[in-house]
This record gives sequence, structure tokens and C-alpha cells, in this order.
Amino acid sequence: MLNQARKEFNIVKGIAPNVSQETLFNNKRKVFLFGSPSYTNIGDQAIAYAEEKFIKNCFPYYEYIEIMDYATEEGIKLVKKIIEADDVVCFTGGGNLGSLYLDIEEDRRKVIESFKDYRTIVFPQSAFFEDTAEGQAEKKKSQDAYNKNPNLTLVARENQTLKILKDTFQANVLYTPDMVLSLSIEPRDLEREGVLFVLRADKEKVTEESFVSDLMNLVGKDNSVERTDTVLSEVEVIDYADRETYFLKTLDKMGSKKLIITDRLHAMIFSIITKTPCLVFGNSYGKAKHSYNDWLHELSFIEYTDNKDLHDIPAIIDRLQKAEPNKIDVKEDFQVLKAFFRG
Amino acid sequence: MLNQARKEFNIVKGIAPNVSQETLFNNKRKVFLFGSPSYTNIGDQAIAYAEEKFIKNCFPYYEYIEIMDYATEEGIKLVKKIIEADDVVCFTGGGNLGSLYLDIEEDRRKVIESFKDYRTIVFPQSAFFEDTAEGQAEKKKSQDAYNKNPNLTLVARENQTLKILKDTFQANVLYTPDMVLSLSIEPRDLEREGVLFVLRADKEKVTEESFVSDLMNLVGKDNSVERTDTVLSEVEVIDYADRETYFLKTLDKMGSKKLIITDRLHAMIFSIITKTPCLVFGNSYGKAKHSYNDWLHELSFIEYTDNKDLHDIPAIIDRLQKAEPNKIDVKEDFQVLKAFFRG
Repeated sequence: MLNQARKEFNIVKGIAPNVSQETLFNNKRKVFLFGSPSYTNIGDQAIAYAEEKFIKNCFPYYEYIEIMDYATEEGIKLVKKIIEADDVVCFTGGGNLGSLYLDIEEDRRKVIESFKDYRTIVFPQSAFFEDTAEGQAEKKKSQDAYNKNPNLTLVARENQTLKILKDTFQANVLYTPDMVLSLSIEPRDLEREGVLFVLRADKEKVTEESFVSDLMNLVGKDNSVERTDTVLSEVEVIDYADRETYFLKTLDKMGSKKLIITDRLHAMIFSIITKTPCLVFGNSYGKAKHSYNDWLHELSFIEYTDNKDLHDIPAIIDRLQKAEPNKIDVKEDFQVLKAFFRG
Repeated sequence: MLNQARKEFNIVKGIAPNVSQETLFNNKRKVFLFGSPSYTNIGDQAIAYAEEKFIKNCFPYYEYIEIMDYATEEGIKLVKKIIEADDVVCFTGGGNLGSLYLDIEEDRRKVIESFKDYRTIVFPQSAFFEDTAEGQAEKKKSQDAYNKNPNLTLVARENQTLKILKDTFQANVLYTPDMVLSLSIEPRDLEREGVLFVLRADKEKVTEESFVSDLMNLVGKDNSVERTDTVLSEVEVIDYADRETYFLKTLDKMGSKKLIITDRLHAMIFSIITKTPCLVFGNSYGKAKHSYNDWLHELSFIEYTDNKDLHDIPAIIDRLQKAEPNKIDVKEDFQVLKAFFRG
């Protein structure tokens, strides 16, 4: 039966990698996740990991079925054939809603348009459309696509995005922290050594290289320093099966450092999970800054700063390293998302 | 390699049913769960389900390997061959520590003795040794076995058991709620109809049949009534692969009732998860009573009573059904257990 279905329904690689393909045809209520990342941004991988845990922990009676980003077209065709009235269509969260990552934005538009008659949700996102002719043209395209779906819910992961989404789209808009903050991982107790710089090399980067090298020299006087990014370069693809391994490896890397210095939202979040002191600088449109200010500023061992005066930084680092890592509970802030999936 | 290992190590059915058998031989730190139930008590099945979620959510970097109750002997032999110094040996939780369920108590003694050189933990339990010559003889046997293990931690799920365990054994003793209360399941929104009596038919039963039939007649005047137990009789075995299905089916059964009347601890806990009003009577040694008093008495829609005056019960039921189901957060009460597994 399944061999025939595979042919008939064109079940290609990347469709339902997280379950046995039989589940596509059972009679359970289904939650489909589109846009499941195969690229090597560990922040986005961790988000997909957290989305799966969230649904499986809170709604074990749903069948949760992922469709990898590279199988979006075939996935849409297949899901259209099997979807039932009360199923839910999701697009993965992240910081890519807008004009900066058009391949992903185009996939999101397609999914939202294709399933306009079904409950559709975009997991917690940061949104940014550039204030250029091109950026605004892309915004118009997204508006056209999203507004075709009267059953659409968007989730903003900080206040700045909440405003953008409400001002831009007709969709219902919810507000929660980044999905990775919904995880319950207890940090492994590792020996700590050295300082890790986790820095962007992409179009969102605003931290000048001269400042980075000055800071690395400064910190390097008393510490071993190393530089990396949460986008891995040693592999080209991270498929579903390898997601947990790479995510946990990254957590271990951060959790074995005395200090993280970063402009990456998820390096900050991984520092929180691993209780590693972390100094955070901004990206081009405030992803880390706004998540920090909206949800995380009470953390004693994490600090966001726009201050790039090298004279001030040693005191900040000293304060972070001396702080007793405290906990904040943002679990309750996911209630609105639970209410959505209960509905 | 694995076929050879299967022969060499005698990997029989019931060993590692939750993972691929290769994981027995990888280099990750391992948590072994012994006593994983194959019998049809859905309370104990839900406990094992919750234990797995707990370890996988909080400690995803450990390899969590179950050994079914029927494979205890072979499991001990195998684990002795592959266990490493920092691995952890667990025995499943429940309400069976003591002299009432000797097959399980004997397995527990064997596991605790066999792994005396390794960190060993018994998940949250209720303990009860009968105050008879036989009961006290069994207590002595358990003391002899448990006290051979200087690395043993026992977890009590209510205060009464905490005292018994501290008075009886040399082990380190922790105190947490029943593991099922660590789950994050959001109740399915089901239509509710009728009243379900969930009543023991075992040696712990103290609710007289005459009272039960009077109460069923009374409640049956205005409602459809049905009687069942959380020990299923329609199947003989529930293996790992079917655990979630039967557990969720039981949740649905409870969640589609207007009221549960029970003397089962886990019928009370399933009522909490599904937000179903629930009136609770006692068993022979206070399992439900003490869990209720120690952790759950603030719940508006759940009430424990020893009152068996039929004139008083309609008012109690009325109060429970009118109450707006509230939430209590016992998640923080599992911190000591998290600390144990971090160690």
C-alpha cells in the first residue's frame, strides 16, 4: 500500500522525515510543519527542534509531520491531497520574515496562499522589510500572499516585530518569545575554558571588523579566544536526522566557555540554556536587542549593549562573570500559542 | 556487528525497545530504566511515559534505554557488561514499593543490588510494608538489598512515603510529586457526557461495593454512569510501542466525562490533566489521599474525601462541577530530580 502511495502521492525525500510515512495516511489530526530547515544555521535548527518538542509534549494526540525546506513544492502538492478540515499548517519560526531571505519568504508565501482554507500559523518570527524600493516591493508581495489567507495567525517574538506584523498584515497576530526558550534542557556540567566570539558573517552584520579585532586582542590578553558563528561551515546540509546532534554539539561548545561575545540572538539563547556569561551586540535590525529587552533583561549573566567603547567593556565582562546565573521563567508566555493549537 | 552483538550479549525482546539497539554500544552517557511496565495498569504506563519525557526533554545528551519488566534478568546481565562509571541505573516509579507487589519488589531488589557500584535511583514511589509477619519479613529483605547499595537514591511522591523511606533505608531520599504531574499535555477539547466511576478491583480496594452501588444509583438519577478501572482488562500486555496510544485513549475517556469518581491516584491525575471534575476516595494506605494533601489540594475541581455519607455527596459534586478548573504549577518541585541527573 505504502509503495503505491509513494508513487501516487510523490512522497520524495524531505517529506515526513520525522515519522514513518504511514502516518501521512492515518486518521489522526495533523500538524504540518513547512520550511523545516536543512541549512546550517544552528539557531534555526534549534527552533525547529523546539517546535517539535512543543507540539509533541503539549499535543501528543496530533500527528506532527515535517516537510523540509528543499521539499516545499512537492510537500504542498502532497499535503493538499491529504489535508483534512481541522488540520493545522505551520511555517517554521526564525528571523527571516521579510525582504532579507527571499528564498524562505517565497516559500512562506506559497505555503500561506496554498492553504488559505486551513488554519495556518507562522511560528515566532522577527520581521524586517528593508526601506528601499526593492524591500517595499517584497513587502507588497508578502501582503498580497498573506492577506489571501483569512485563517492566518502570525507570531511575533519581540515587540518591534509585533508592531510590524500588525501594521503590515490582516492576519491574527500573537506574541511569544523565541521557540528555543520553550525548551527544558538542563545544562551539562562542563569544564569552562576561554572566550568564544560568535559573530555573524552575513548581511545582518553591523559589528565592524576593526572593533572585533580590538576586542579580541583586549580579551585575549588574559584568555584563550576563539571565533566562530552559529552558522556551521563544516557541513553543507543538516537534515532532520542530524538536527539534535549538531544542536547539542553547539550547546556543548558554548557551555564549555567562560564567556560568549556575540551578535547572534541564538548564541545569546544558547548561553542562557548553558548558563554561560554572555555579552551581546546588535545586528542590522535589532533581533537580539529586542528579544533581550522584551524578555531577557532580568538575566544577571547576560547583557546587551550598544556601547563599543573598549574602555568600558572590561567592567561589563567582569560583572557578567561574577554574576550568579539566575533563571527567568518564560514558559507561561507560550500560553497563547498553546491556546492556538488547542483550538 | 549488531547481529553478532545480539548473540554475544543476548539482547532479547524487551531490552532497549525505545531505541535502536546500536545505541547500547555508543559512547554516550547512559540512563537505564529497569522495570518498564508491560502490565496493563495505565497509571504505571503513564509514569513510564513521563519518565521518558523527563529525561529526553531535560537531558537530551544522555542515551535513555528502557528494559521491560519481563526482561529484567537478561537486562541486568547485559547492562552489567556495557555499563560505564558515570551511567545511571533507574527503576521505574509507581505505588508498588513494599510488600504488596512482590514480583516488582523482587525485581527492584535485584536491580539495586546488582548495580551497587553505580548511581542508582528509584523514581517517585509510594511505599507500604504490611504490618504483618510476612510484611515485616519482606521489609527486612528489601532493607538487606537496598542497603548494599551505597549509591542509592529513593524518591518519595508524598510525605507519608518520605518518612517510611527515611526510617527504613540508608539511601539518600528525595521528595517530588508523581512523575505524571511533570507532563505538559494540553487537554483535548472534547464533548463531555456522563459520569465515570474508576474503581479498584485489587487488594488495595477499601470502597465497599454497597457504597459504590448506592452512589452509582444516586448519581445515575440525573446522569449516564459507567464503571471502569485504570487497569485495562481488554488487553494482557502493553509493550513500549503501544504505551502512548493506550495512555492517550485513557485520557480521552476521562476528558469526555462530566465527572470522575475514583479511588485511583492516576484517575485523579488524569482528571487534572483533562480538567475534569473529580471526587476521590481512598485506597488501603492513602496513596491518593496523601498525594492530594501534599501537592494538589489547591485544585478547585478535584476533591479528596473520606466522607461516605450519601446525603453529603451531591453538594460536593455540585461544588466540583461549578468550579472553574484552576492550574497549579508543580514543575518546580521536580528540581531535586533534575539536580540528581545533572550530577
